Amino acid sequence: MSNESSDSKIIFVGRKLPMDYVLAIVTAFSESDVKEATVKARGRSITTAVDAVEIARRKFVKEMIVDKVAIGTEEMPPREGESNSRNISTIEITLKRS
Amino acid sequence: MSNESSDSKIIFVGRKLPMDYVLAIVTAFSESDVKEATVKARGRSITTAVDAVEIARRKFVKEMIVDKVAIGTEEMPPREGESNSRNISTIEITLKRS
Repeated sequence: MSNESSDSKIIFVGRKLPMDYVLAIVTAFSESDVKEATVKARGRSITTAVDAVEIARRKFVKEMIVDKVAIGTEEMPPREGESNSRNISTIEITLKRS
Repeated sequence: MSNESSDSKIIFVGRKLPMDYVLAIVTAFSESDVKEATVKARGRSITTAVDAVEIARRKFVKEMIVDKVAIGTEEMPPREGESNSRNISTIEITLKRS
């Protein structure tokens, strides 16, 4: 997969604080051969992903731009004791060097 | 402002349930002259906005597409007892008839 090559990184955002993911973004772009990074999140972590990207862009990686934002839906397996699968919203924010 | 004309609507997403905003989106697109709607949210409501758009698109308004998603930051006045203004993340999701 081209996503695993050195010029593109994927950062999965979960339940940590936004600053943890800001650090991941800053670290990704500190490698000179990285031209692109994608920040992915689902459910309640979507807000954290947007926060992390905005903090990184405004305070730490001035040469970084938001290239594309895509939203979608993923089907998740049912929770224990439930019979229906559930849908969860997703976001993918593609970042590039300007 | 062109945003106030009949062919474009703005839906502000706050702290209600996603289905309340799904209804607002469905209602906006039920008017035949509406070609575009923009869903706006900030902070924790960003996830609700994405949920509402995804539910509307997948279950109710099949002819609707996500045209553009933009993220940003707004400066908010300080909370009572605090001296610094605070930054809050924003999202704007532009929807169109396909």
